Amino acid sequence: MRGRLVTLEGGEGAGKSTVLAAVRESLQAHGIDVVVAREPGGTVLGEAVRKLVLDPAHAGVCAESELLLMFAARAQLVREIIQPALASGRWVLSDRYTDASYAYQGGGRGQPAGRIAELERWAAPVAPDLTLLLDLPVSEGLARAGARGEADRIERESGDFFERVRAAYRTRAAAEPARFRVLDASRAVDEVRAAACAEIDRFVAAARASA
Amino acid sequence: MRGRLVTLEGGEGAGKSTVLAAVRESLQAHGIDVVVAREPGGTVLGEAVRKLVLDPAHAGVCAESELLLMFAARAQLVREIIQPALASGRWVLSDRYTDASYAYQGGGRGQPAGRIAELERWAAPVAPDLTLLLDLPVSEGLARAGARGEADRIERESGDFFERVRAAYRTRAAAEPARFRVLDASRAVDEVRAAACAEIDRFVAAARASA
Repeated sequence: MRGRLVTLEGGEGAGKSTVLAAVRESLQAHGIDVVVAREPGGTVLGEAVRKLVLDPAHAGVCAESELLLMFAARAQLVREIIQPALASGRWVLSDRYTDASYAYQGGGRGQPAGRIAELERWAAPVAPDLTLLLDLPVSEGLARAGARGEADRIERESGDFFERVRAAYRTRAAAEPARFRVLDASRAVDEVRAAACAEIDRFVAAARASA
Repeated sequence: MRGRLVTLEGGEGAGKSTVLAAVRESLQAHGIDVVVAREPGGTVLGEAVRKLVLDPAHAGVCAESELLLMFAARAQLVREIIQPALASGRWVLSDRYTDASYAYQGGGRGQPAGRIAELERWAAPVAPDLTLLLDLPVSEGLARAGARGEADRIERESGDFFERVRAAYRTRAAAEPARFRVLDASRAVDEVRAAACAEIDRFVAAARASA
């Protein structure tokens, strides 16, 4: 069976970390060798970029630089981690990927989708096979995230910003229903986790059937 | 008189720092208020990116990431320094600018020129008014640079790499003769400095005549 790229997306306080851990265990329980990555980051260069781009001290960073930095980290992740893993038959589970740029730098910061698509074409030319989108009302997500302590530069944005992020995520999910599974993340965390694992079970079964 | 963007380009060991200081003094002697910048860098974000991209520890950084990082630093420099300075009638003198990406990431690393032009269009939409290219044979430049101590990640490249950088610079200069002045940097440093200042004198006179 060839490797697959599974991505996890969602706004602030959607419970991504909890679901990520459950999805990883679920994949491993299916006997799948899975590499976990996160964005921005996942490589030495990417983690350095992450630190830079999320640092509240860089409050004045322009939208163009933010977009370019996200893709700089992503280009390295694709070449250093994702492509070699997939080539050797391993699966990759990534905490955020290109959809996050359409949501945050596109919806949130107003960078044109065509610009992001052009970067995607040459900087991150590996498309996800499955994307789980944890969706919940912005106010609920921010209330949960707020309980977590100090916010990074992007987490300090306004509610309006996160409404645009959510809308952009939902638009992408609606445009690619075969790839996206939208999970209602306003439910209790156990239910969200169970729903995510059920999607993984179905996806693995389909991947095996097609192998 | 409106502000002008003057850029200084050249390979390793071409004497850019010496010429930069002389050009700045020359502009100031003409009564011009000049802001000096360097690339990558010139802003808090840009200097952080510079540190990251030139760090020999990041030996495995892919060509795409390098290109994106250079433009991330440049986009911030344009918006934070270059555009406000020019808008207020000041001049900007930059130690390297977009031509360096065509030379290093394009010629050196093989990134397509069309890709760089597309980034230039939206990330760095301010074209230089005058570019001084310090040109000298690669072997001479490397011999001079080698005397300077520890090399950064890009300075550690091979002679072939720098031959491609030089060729790309010369191709750009040949394509835009109205903007470029190619200075033979294999001469004694006093002569190179004098030649650069003579070009600045002519450029300032022409700028004043057209004001």
